Amino acid sequence: MSVTGEYDVVVIGAGPAGENIADRAVRKGLTAAIIESELVGGECSYWACMPSKALLRPVTAADDARHVEGVQGATLDPAGVLDRRDGFASHWKDDGQVQWLAGAHIDLIRGQGRLTGPKTVSVNGTELRARHAVAVATGSDALIPPVPGLAEARPWTSREVTSAPAAPRRLAIIGGGVVGCEMATAWQALGTQVTLIARGRLLASTEEFAGKLVGDGLRQAGVDVRAGVSATAVHRAGDRGPVTLTLDDGSTVEADEVLAATGRTPRTTDIGLDTVGLEPGSWLDVDSTMRVTAAEGGWLYATGDVNHLSLLTHMGKYQARICGDAIAARAAGREPATTAWADHTAVPQVIFTQPEVASVGPTADQARAAGRNIRVVDYDLGAVAGSKLFADGYTGQARMVVDEDRRTMIGATLAGPGAGELIHAATVAVAGQVPLDRLWHAVPSYPTMSEIWLRLLETYGL
Amino acid sequence: MSVTGEYDVVVIGAGPAGENIADRAVRKGLTAAIIESELVGGECSYWACMPSKALLRPVTAADDARHVEGVQGATLDPAGVLDRRDGFASHWKDDGQVQWLAGAHIDLIRGQGRLTGPKTVSVNGTELRARHAVAVATGSDALIPPVPGLAEARPWTSREVTSAPAAPRRLAIIGGGVVGCEMATAWQALGTQVTLIARGRLLASTEEFAGKLVGDGLRQAGVDVRAGVSATAVHRAGDRGPVTLTLDDGSTVEADEVLAATGRTPRTTDIGLDTVGLEPGSWLDVDSTMRVTAAEGGWLYATGDVNHLSLLTHMGKYQARICGDAIAARAAGREPATTAWADHTAVPQVIFTQPEVASVGPTADQARAAGRNIRVVDYDLGAVAGSKLFADGYTGQARMVVDEDRRTMIGATLAGPGAGELIHAATVAVAGQVPLDRLWHAVPSYPTMSEIWLRLLETYGL
Repeated sequence: MSVTGEYDVVVIGAGPAGENIADRAVRKGLTAAIIESELVGGECSYWACMPSKALLRPVTAADDARHVEGVQGATLDPAGVLDRRDGFASHWKDDGQVQWLAGAHIDLIRGQGRLTGPKTVSVNGTELRARHAVAVATGSDALIPPVPGLAEARPWTSREVTSAPAAPRRLAIIGGGVVGCEMATAWQALGTQVTLIARGRLLASTEEFAGKLVGDGLRQAGVDVRAGVSATAVHRAGDRGPVTLTLDDGSTVEADEVLAATGRTPRTTDIGLDTVGLEPGSWLDVDSTMRVTAAEGGWLYATGDVNHLSLLTHMGKYQARICGDAIAARAAGREPATTAWADHTAVPQVIFTQPEVASVGPTADQARAAGRNIRVVDYDLGAVAGSKLFADGYTGQARMVVDEDRRTMIGATLAGPGAGELIHAATVAVAGQVPLDRLWHAVPSYPTMSEIWLRLLETYGL
Repeated sequence: MSVTGEYDVVVIGAGPAGENIADRAVRKGLTAAIIESELVGGECSYWACMPSKALLRPVTAADDARHVEGVQGATLDPAGVLDRRDGFASHWKDDGQVQWLAGAHIDLIRGQGRLTGPKTVSVNGTELRARHAVAVATGSDALIPPVPGLAEARPWTSREVTSAPAAPRRLAIIGGGVVGCEMATAWQALGTQVTLIARGRLLASTEEFAGKLVGDGLRQAGVDVRAGVSATAVHRAGDRGPVTLTLDDGSTVEADEVLAATGRTPRTTDIGLDTVGLEPGSWLDVDSTMRVTAAEGGWLYATGDVNHLSLLTHMGKYQARICGDAIAARAAGREPATTAWADHTAVPQVIFTQPEVASVGPTADQARAAGRNIRVVDYDLGAVAGSKLFADGYTGQARMVVDEDRRTMIGATLAGPGAGELIHAATVAVAGQVPLDRLWHAVPSYPTMSEIWLRLLETYGL
């Protein structure tokens, strides 16, 4: 194997994280190659964020319109929705992304990238040498839980459920997390009879009221929600026959497709981790500059899902900016400075269900478990004038978690229609560590839903 | 005239500002009376914010739905929209607000309140004495511009245009500001042929691109926009005949109703200002605690439209909280502390046109005129993934104004569908004076429209 290329940085994986690492490094004057074995743009562009939100937005827009007296007749055209989804997934072609890479002066190499030792990566039988850093940004795969018969039943994963060419008649979903709840929302609205099977409560990592409101929404939409039960066996009749799931409450569910939405596993089994003393198939722990802590020599970085800090596109991109800047700083002989404010708890997430759930920072329980001295402030999101105007009979809930020692907001959760765009105000307050006494002077416009932030401060007692 | 009541605070005017002054004072242990000559709840509840936004939300919801492939048939039912508006205006009855006052332990006195001297107010032939403060919160009236024949043509003001029982066939609007543009949006969608006459550009106090996008939206909706012209004469034929407007470009406009939307005048002509040495009919200048600077003795406050700081309900309520707290602090012998962070330039505004316009702080021109060393950062709001998902063919624009000496955002303007709920994040950054280097760690969720804040920071060069 001969060395055919030398770059300052070699990135394995051209999803949003990999693209941003390379882009930041190149902008700071380094050379970069990016290796991709599938489509440039990654999971997010073709089998996650984009197609799922393209499916969900029409559902939301129609539902929003139906909840305003004076608007008539908003209905879904499933074929139109699927067309739209195909467009947002770029028809599963990566020409646009390839063009973006070229414009950003990043060399693309298609193939399976594998580490072969310190700062060397093989791809397609040739070897690349990295002068300063190799960054792993290979992302994650859906985890198929070890339910007897499930793997043999050819389950859908996040890939198939976001790219399905037509709505199945019946869909059973195993898993009540974000993927399960979002896809139940989308496909039920598009004509599928969805059964959602959740081991515990829905959206277990969010505040309890959020999962409850989403469960109510799913049931109202016609989803058969089975919470607190697990599948114990799965059987598909023949090659194309229906799937039968047996649950631990003794009941069964018959469906045409079954979606496994129970978690993710790192895509690190076949990237040569063993050649640099690391365990194939493991998550890669990193320091605050995204450097892999268990790797010797300080040249290996890992960004995005693969480091398990936060399996969210925007956090992967955030990490990638930090990573690219750190690589560039160290290449110039400096330690990076930009991480000074990094706060790994200020992570926002929007779940595009009906109602939407938007959160940042720890939940009340998570904050207490972390030993924080907190006060929890709740307010009915539906009692805000902007919410009443947004939808007749608006139902929602809001919670602010205040660190009483620092008198700052450290977390917030909103559940309600249109909540997704409201959370960034809290993210700025949390990441900016804006004292409550000062936050009080950030006046929300009347009558917007953002007035919830004033109501929460008033309820706190400012 | 005998003294029939003594209160710690007497408030003249029971709109949002007056209600909030009294509420804050009572919560801090004072007694308060509020005097109202019309409906409790004020202009905002019956003839401004609430009815106008109740008219506009269905227009927006239907339009949003129509801009998403896969949603069919969203149309407006004008009768339903007007029904909804009537509900949001509480059918012009103030029972709910009266109940709220009672629950807040504020005494309501109906009638025309007039100052009769220091700390005394007459109403209905009796006199109230204020132990600590009198607060004027009487708001503003529509200004009828001195166009020959206009007053005689019985023009609509903001009151009639928000409460009209049916859509006029033709409506001419004089004034291209917020009221003019919002009401053109609403009534054109409800079936009226609207002609909008603006002396200068539309929304002249906002960034130029915002007015341009709103003008484009109005024209697309069918409004006859005449910018850069003025009405020189108005004539109504007979008692119920049509109105003809003559413009200074020589053209004429015929309409069934004409709306005067050219500004506001303070409601201070008949509140006894002369008895305390002030000019009836004037705006009342105040200090940072809302105390009238020209009044002797420090007992007279003015809050809301009447002090001319900012003619916006949310700013009136903000001032009212400061005012109520200041009155309570001084009654307790202390100087108020809560105004330490008050920044009179961090004023947000949302204009509910199509597209929406949302802003906070000064425009680039206003900041330059104030001598600030600024950098202007522009980004296409339609280029954000969240915007593309929100509406097919999304058109919008975003601008951030950065104070280069302090390296903080001091202003921002967004124009585009759904922009209204995006601005509070900027308001928190502006009022919180969050340094850009720190703001960079406030990560917007992907794929929301809020990602515009990341794009602006990236464009700035962080």
